[in-house]
Amino acid sequence: MPSHTELLRLAVDLAHANRQRGGRPFGAVLARDGEVIATGINDIVHTHDPSAHAEMQALRAGTWRQASPSLAGCTLYASGHPCPMCLAALLMAGCGQVFYAFDNQDATPYGLSNEGWYRCLRLPLVPPPLPLSRLDTGISAAQLYGDTPWPQA
Amino acid sequence: MPSHTELLRLAVDLAHANRQRGGRPFGAVLARDGEVIATGINDIVHTHDPSAHAEMQALRAGTWRQASPSLAGCTLYASGHPCPMCLAALLMAGCGQVFYAFDNQDATPYGLSNEGWYRCLRLPLVPPPLPLSRLDTGISAAQLYGDTPWPQA
Repeated sequence: MPSHTELLRLAVDLAHANRQRGGRPFGAVLARDGEVIATGINDIVHTHDPSAHAEMQALRAGTWRQASPSLAGCTLYASGHPCPMCLAALLMAGCGQVFYAFDNQDATPYGLSNEGWYRCLRLPLVPPPLPLSRLDTGISAAQLYGDTPWPQA
Repeated sequence: MPSHTELLRLAVDLAHANRQRGGRPFGAVLARDGEVIATGINDIVHTHDPSAHAEMQALRAGTWRQASPSLAGCTLYASGHPCPMCLAALLMAGCGQVFYAFDNQDATPYGLSNEGWYRCLRLPLVPPPLPLSRLDTGISAAQLYGDTPWPQA
């Protein structure tokens, strides 16, 4: 069974591949008992859908695949710290836990932090409403985010 | 130009029609300067997508139609008070304001309130992060929600 770090590394690889195709550098993997159910990339640039965050795309693909809206027993691996929309969606769908690689501090120099939205909603970042942990994948934020300005979304 | 109440009434009518086809009783209308850009219904029952709330479906359809992820200048009319996911999505997309017909108190007797998710996230309901107002459409919660138990989602 793949480790949490290996599955998170896959999410980061998806984020990197999405960057190569002109998308925003975010990827996600949805798994249950170590088995990958679905993956997602941030697809705002290509779809114009502002809700097409990587976590949401993985949630949509995974629930479609299993023909059930419940993410009970699932773990979501996200390259970046989930935004308030994704956090609420994962919570409401019953997702068991979330691991992410880069937090808002890592993302700030590249204009990719979502901390401002948490502040705007007055939604506390800690403690999170479901288990939410950062894991080191051995890849640096600079390697993923680089210094290219990103399309706003 | 249709009034806010007329557009909100349309959202409630969509919710009612969705109930008739076995869906959850929520509808939404997205408009700019009184022109309807998109509509949405809660489609969780038929798609298994737990993010398929009426507001999200209207947001997706509207941004696809206009080929831009920005809801600047838009007004969203929702039959029910938006949940935290939808509120965050509308805020982050730049939606100008939201009107809704039924609040969580109206929805509680029918098991349709989202107040528990606000509590779970410790997200304050008031003041909202964007203009969010209740309007009376002349339709009662009992007329829309009835006393039928709803599919959980």
